[in-house]
Amino acid sequence: MALPKIETCFSPSLLHLYDIKKSIVVIIDVFRATSTIAAALDNGAKQIIPIDSVEKCIEMGLTSSNAITAGERDGKVAPGLEHGNSPLEYETDFIKGKTLLFTTTNGTRLLHMCGEASEIISGSFLNLGAVCDYLKSQQKDVLLACASWKDRYNLEDSLFAGAVYDQIGEYFEMNCDSTRAAHHLYKAAKNDLYGFIQDSSHFHRLSKFGLQYDMEYCCKINKHNVLVRYMDGKLVIAP
Amino acid sequence: MALPKIETCFSPSLLHLYDIKKSIVVIIDVFRATSTIAAALDNGAKQIIPIDSVEKCIEMGLTSSNAITAGERDGKVAPGLEHGNSPLEYETDFIKGKTLLFTTTNGTRLLHMCGEASEIISGSFLNLGAVCDYLKSQQKDVLLACASWKDRYNLEDSLFAGAVYDQIGEYFEMNCDSTRAAHHLYKAAKNDLYGFIQDSSHFHRLSKFGLQYDMEYCCKINKHNVLVRYMDGKLVIAP
Repeated sequence: MALPKIETCFSPSLLHLYDIKKSIVVIIDVFRATSTIAAALDNGAKQIIPIDSVEKCIEMGLTSSNAITAGERDGKVAPGLEHGNSPLEYETDFIKGKTLLFTTTNGTRLLHMCGEASEIISGSFLNLGAVCDYLKSQQKDVLLACASWKDRYNLEDSLFAGAVYDQIGEYFEMNCDSTRAAHHLYKAAKNDLYGFIQDSSHFHRLSKFGLQYDMEYCCKINKHNVLVRYMDGKLVIAP
Repeated sequence: MALPKIETCFSPSLLHLYDIKKSIVVIIDVFRATSTIAAALDNGAKQIIPIDSVEKCIEMGLTSSNAITAGERDGKVAPGLEHGNSPLEYETDFIKGKTLLFTTTNGTRLLHMCGEASEIISGSFLNLGAVCDYLKSQQKDVLLACASWKDRYNLEDSLFAGAVYDQIGEYFEMNCDSTRAAHHLYKAAKNDLYGFIQDSSHFHRLSKFGLQYDMEYCCKINKHNVLVRYMDGKLVIAP
């Protein structure tokens, strides 16, 4: 039997090059949307609703019960929202049973661009194992889709794609230079992921806001090892 | 004095993210357009005119004197053209003093997309040293622009970008994850560039046509160490 194929897309601006209709798309926004998503759901959030604009997020917050508006623009809490895009903000005592109305610079936008995909799941180092176990079990084509930074390639999302390939590549057919490059990069980084990532654009950008600990947390493998699926407009732990 | 900046663009589909008006753009199409360009000019070609369609290339061939039509589509000599896209086809005896009317799948298209650039030069491993010496001397912003394969990221162009950064990075300001990734990749590959590149999509594709020796040749550093500039619609050795 032919193996399913695995590919990596480095930027939303390249998404049109991939046929995703029959694929599981893994949305990757390591710093920090998909890390925050894994943490909040693992800590008991009922669901996360990704929203593409700050305005719409605020508006939905006014009419939703037991919901929190959250998100960022350019790395900071967007004015008018109650919370930010840090996996550390959503501890169990605070988030359990609540709905997170969530908008971010890159991750939410990519999610909405992938509407044609057969399935969408959310990936970060915090739930790497759950993502890999699921992809391995499904025998479907996979696209590892990096949210990047305003459409520019970034290291951390690419490293995550490389980590996925490192774990489950043998179960897929692969002829994709983006995946190869991501894998080479991951092999260079894996012994000290957090150290490696400190020379990256996003690390430099977020460090200026004192968010180093956030990023260190985002590098913790399997800390919130839940499988997160996007369905009917909501991100939830897969049943 | 502030250093000029250096950035890398992995695909023509990402070119809109970069402001190239004040930059030297290095067009990179290692397999094989920019390698062929360096070889043909170093071997005495008078000039190379990059043309965006096979039809236009054939038409110009009918009315140009002392000119050769050449190029490829999908790795093979395009029907109706006299020659292909191999650096080995253009030896001195054959090419000296002639004009090459040249069209390729990726390289020519990218060249025509960069019309706004302050300057355009052509880069390949065959003329790596000349490219680096020039960029270092100019103190201008640089964009290393990978032709890629039909807009998809490829390893070989990225490796060349990494090689340039490896040689002259210290003379530039760099905050670009594409450049960082390219540099990491080059460091992993540099001791055996040709061996490394054998696991790449383009190598697999061109190997089917028996073009391994072509690709091995394209990995020879400084074999045709000329500075190639694009001006007034022509590629020529810089005066």
